[in-house]
Amino acid sequence: MRVLDAIDDEYGGVIVDPQRLPVNPSSFAMVLHSSLSHWKMQGKKGVWLKLPVERSELVPIAVKEGFQYHHAERGYVMLTYWIPEGPCMLPSNASHHVGVGGFVINDKNEVLVVQEKHYAPALVGLWKIPTGFILEAEEISTGVVREIKEETGIDTEFVEVIAFRHAHNVAFEKSDLFFVCMLRPLSTQIAVDDIEIQAAKWMPLDEFVEQPLIQGDCMFKKIIDICIARLGKRYCGLSAQQLVSKFDGKLSSLYYNVTEAQDLNCQGL
Amino acid sequence: MRVLDAIDDEYGGVIVDPQRLPVNPSSFAMVLHSSLSHWKMQGKKGVWLKLPVERSELVPIAVKEGFQYHHAERGYVMLTYWIPEGPCMLPSNASHHVGVGGFVINDKNEVLVVQEKHYAPALVGLWKIPTGFILEAEEISTGVVREIKEETGIDTEFVEVIAFRHAHNVAFEKSDLFFVCMLRPLSTQIAVDDIEIQAAKWMPLDEFVEQPLIQGDCMFKKIIDICIARLGKRYCGLSAQQLVSKFDGKLSSLYYNVTEAQDLNCQGL
Repeated sequence: MRVLDAIDDEYGGVIVDPQRLPVNPSSFAMVLHSSLSHWKMQGKKGVWLKLPVERSELVPIAVKEGFQYHHAERGYVMLTYWIPEGPCMLPSNASHHVGVGGFVINDKNEVLVVQEKHYAPALVGLWKIPTGFILEAEEISTGVVREIKEETGIDTEFVEVIAFRHAHNVAFEKSDLFFVCMLRPLSTQIAVDDIEIQAAKWMPLDEFVEQPLIQGDCMFKKIIDICIARLGKRYCGLSAQQLVSKFDGKLSSLYYNVTEAQDLNCQGL
Repeated sequence: MRVLDAIDDEYGGVIVDPQRLPVNPSSFAMVLHSSLSHWKMQGKKGVWLKLPVERSELVPIAVKEGFQYHHAERGYVMLTYWIPEGPCMLPSNASHHVGVGGFVINDKNEVLVVQEKHYAPALVGLWKIPTGFILEAEEISTGVVREIKEETGIDTEFVEVIAFRHAHNVAFEKSDLFFVCMLRPLSTQIAVDDIEIQAAKWMPLDEFVEQPLIQGDCMFKKIIDICIARLGKRYCGLSAQQLVSKFDGKLSSLYYNVTEAQDLNCQGL
């Protein structure tokens, strides 16, 4: 009985080698079927089958065999099969988009604001802080600096995460985490990104806050109120510290409040 | 010329109606081809093609026509086609998994801890706080209460988000946001979830902190130090306030520090 090349995972499942799939679709169909019988006899649990986009002809064959879609990226679709009786215990697909917004204020008390080209009708005319999504494997502090630079040409230095918003059923029924960051400007000359942005400018803080669209919306107003409290040192935000955990050797960032009374002495990098 | 049923999106693109795809695969191939010519002439930008799992035989046809995978969920795969010259401006797939950890401490200064069934070898023997992933469209504060209840049987009340960790290339090359929360226990009797958890107990805080695996790992230790600072009121965490934004009518949660000196007066729900 032929069986697909696969390695065991840590959880009693198997991961099929996407590089060594049978070339012929009907061979694939036969071998996939006999592989499932083999893994069932072995008491295996989850089966992970990653099909590169070049092998898309195998997708309907796997679906016919009972595989479900798990997730997809530009170059592949991942299908899964849960062998045991009872509910599927495989981990879920990614669930969130992560956005950032940059509150950049200069020493003349002017805020860096933009008007976007594609506004929802209710927002037309609004001057808002630059926002965007972080890239794959990008840090929040890096992503917000990049987005501000792309949209306005302004160089900035990340100071703190001020607050974050959690919303659901946004794009593709996924959730959305939006981190409002405070940044220090390192340059003054604006150069607008023509693709996404209609206009950008430095706007006096009072004028920015007094916009009817901000005053009339509880979420916008609250976020701005917090930023202003931070400027007046009546609020503390979260700083990022990079740390390596011994267990996975991964460098990751811990975001926490910087309080003066803290006595935390673990050393970062 | 036949064209697939589709609606325009807000960004100059089209969204194909997944309910009204031609039944016959070869008709689909022809109509998809002529639809693309039609949309190109109309100056359309992105094309969104959602193929339900029951129509998986259409996947290789769409790929052959030049479509790329965008994302997939259990019941469908979404493919996209970017018509204009130049880089694809379509929004990305979800990028993050969101996990929660619950630091639950009772009035005897005991922490609610668990040992998991599936540990990485380096972590064997570790008593840790209950952790898990939040469900689709679930709030952080709700998800952490649910995970603690599932793993240990203990009812809790959410107090604050204490800190969060951002790590990259975790599962399926996606990033991971992990929110450490503090909670108040509302019950004492532990009932262990047999599927994921080996054991659960109330452990004296000192004993918990002194575990060599925690003392020896910078990230673990830092998180615990912050929790202890919070217990001693030398640290403030983030509270959640639910707010509805007028513009999308969406109820979402804003997480921000609760500081005594704040003068933020926007009313929540």
